[in-house]
Amino acid sequence: MTGRTPDFAGWLAAARPALEEHLAGSLAAGSLAGAPPRLQEAVRRTLLSGGKRLRPALCLLACEAEGGGISRALPAASALECIHAYSLVHDDLPCMDDDALRRGQPTLHVLYGEAAAVLAGDALQALAFEILAAQQDAALARDQARLLAVAAGPRGMVGGQFLDMQAEGATADAALVRAIHEAKTGALLGAALQCGARAAGADPRRWEAFGASLGRLFQATDDLLDATRTSQELGKTADKDRGAGKATLVAVHGLDGARAAVRREAEAAGAALTVLAPRARYHELADLPRFLAERAR
Amino acid sequence: MTGRTPDFAGWLAAARPALEEHLAGSLAAGSLAGAPPRLQEAVRRTLLSGGKRLRPALCLLACEAEGGGISRALPAASALECIHAYSLVHDDLPCMDDDALRRGQPTLHVLYGEAAAVLAGDALQALAFEILAAQQDAALARDQARLLAVAAGPRGMVGGQFLDMQAEGATADAALVRAIHEAKTGALLGAALQCGARAAGADPRRWEAFGASLGRLFQATDDLLDATRTSQELGKTADKDRGAGKATLVAVHGLDGARAAVRREAEAAGAALTVLAPRARYHELADLPRFLAERAR
Repeated sequence: MTGRTPDFAGWLAAARPALEEHLAGSLAAGSLAGAPPRLQEAVRRTLLSGGKRLRPALCLLACEAEGGGISRALPAASALECIHAYSLVHDDLPCMDDDALRRGQPTLHVLYGEAAAVLAGDALQALAFEILAAQQDAALARDQARLLAVAAGPRGMVGGQFLDMQAEGATADAALVRAIHEAKTGALLGAALQCGARAAGADPRRWEAFGASLGRLFQATDDLLDATRTSQELGKTADKDRGAGKATLVAVHGLDGARAAVRREAEAAGAALTVLAPRARYHELADLPRFLAERAR
Repeated sequence: MTGRTPDFAGWLAAARPALEEHLAGSLAAGSLAGAPPRLQEAVRRTLLSGGKRLRPALCLLACEAEGGGISRALPAASALECIHAYSLVHDDLPCMDDDALRRGQPTLHVLYGEAAAVLAGDALQALAFEILAAQQDAALARDQARLLAVAAGPRGMVGGQFLDMQAEGATADAALVRAIHEAKTGALLGAALQCGARAAGADPRRWEAFGASLGRLFQATDDLLDATRTSQELGKTADKDRGAGKATLVAVHGLDGARAAVRREAEAAGAALTVLAPRARYHELADLPRFLAERAR
């Protein structure tokens, strides 16, 4: 016993092996195994080449916070990572954000060509729902599929990216930036918490406010990081948003305004968590806003 | 009473209004309603601008053939059409088949730009699973989601398109053409029948052989049509396969060989149907191979 207060990073480090094992196992057991070898390779490389695993972590943490065991939430955690991975591959395409670098590695379309990158992304989205639908508990599978589909779809993640592309070069506006952040990032982070809560048998709607705050916080730090870090620090091309004329918090409110937004959202997330009153993992959850905000210091 | 033997086209004409109404209703009731207006427009245009509705028709027909009412199979029928529509949008992209014309209309990326076309396709795939997951019967939703995800994913439709792209310009080979056809087209046609059978409470595997024959037949007629019709007749760019060096039946076996394959698969489908012994709609199902083969006359 060290007496140290449990933090999010420590919890994630402990949970990560189970997560990675389930992800690799789902790919091996599912229909990917019968796919063209080069497509398998592209999908595996995308999924298994690191990443923070934030969305799966939120899913497992919410499940534990509602009194469930981690294993109940693992399929949804893997499915969330498939959706997130597909969104990165498609966002990096030349016709979208045109990014050649991700996590310090060449992006998928650079390595495999554009057509293969579109198809690997498409395959990852299908795999997400295949993993959910492989669950024994049909009601759980159905409910999580609905949460994930809505969060990933035209009103959620895809809609946010659409607004983001549409806003390029136009005059940025605070309401638009907020709408982009909520749909592009917030929806999937929220669905991660909600899928986890549902796995524990709780009402997913309890997690809406906390998830919405975390989503805004995450995207605010993302905007700050893009504007303040070097490409080497980021593992992807830095200061791209400004060059592309993106609608970001920094473009609308400046660096100091964006930093203030990060502090504000971290406080709002803390308040939402207090109201939510999780049954377990309070310290790890309460540390999450700090963990996310730290990225942008 | 006319005494005429029921045929597939007549049945489809009668079933079509219920199908189109469910599709439009699902879009209005689902998360698309909260999406950015221009994205909504792109998705609706793609889904509601005609098309043969073959996959949803197969789903409804298999449900009736197994003794179920059409309404049980309508959600899966709409979901199948969403998956099919997304695949057309992504296949037409400049980095894929680069097609500017579809059903006699400019393709989505021509009208809305490439990024919007990628995103509209992504949204349509999410919508498919949202529609399935909105069903009251959780076991039905879960089972159909699994069938659809596997058929649409890396071993199915996406894998087939991947092989198709990979084969461009290489020496075509009969085994490869068969693998492409089975994955690219056959998997989803098969899933359509299987989702319909599952809606009626039957074992979906009963429909595998008939579905596989129909898939090969459909793709064989597609290859023939591309090689023999004008762009105006097709509503899309004609004789593209040869120019692109595609692995097609015509490239491997010539026109006469491809025509022989169509006759062979139509007979195989008829034989598979006899073994399957549907409880209803026998005439409409038995007419289906003829209906598909006729396209290429």
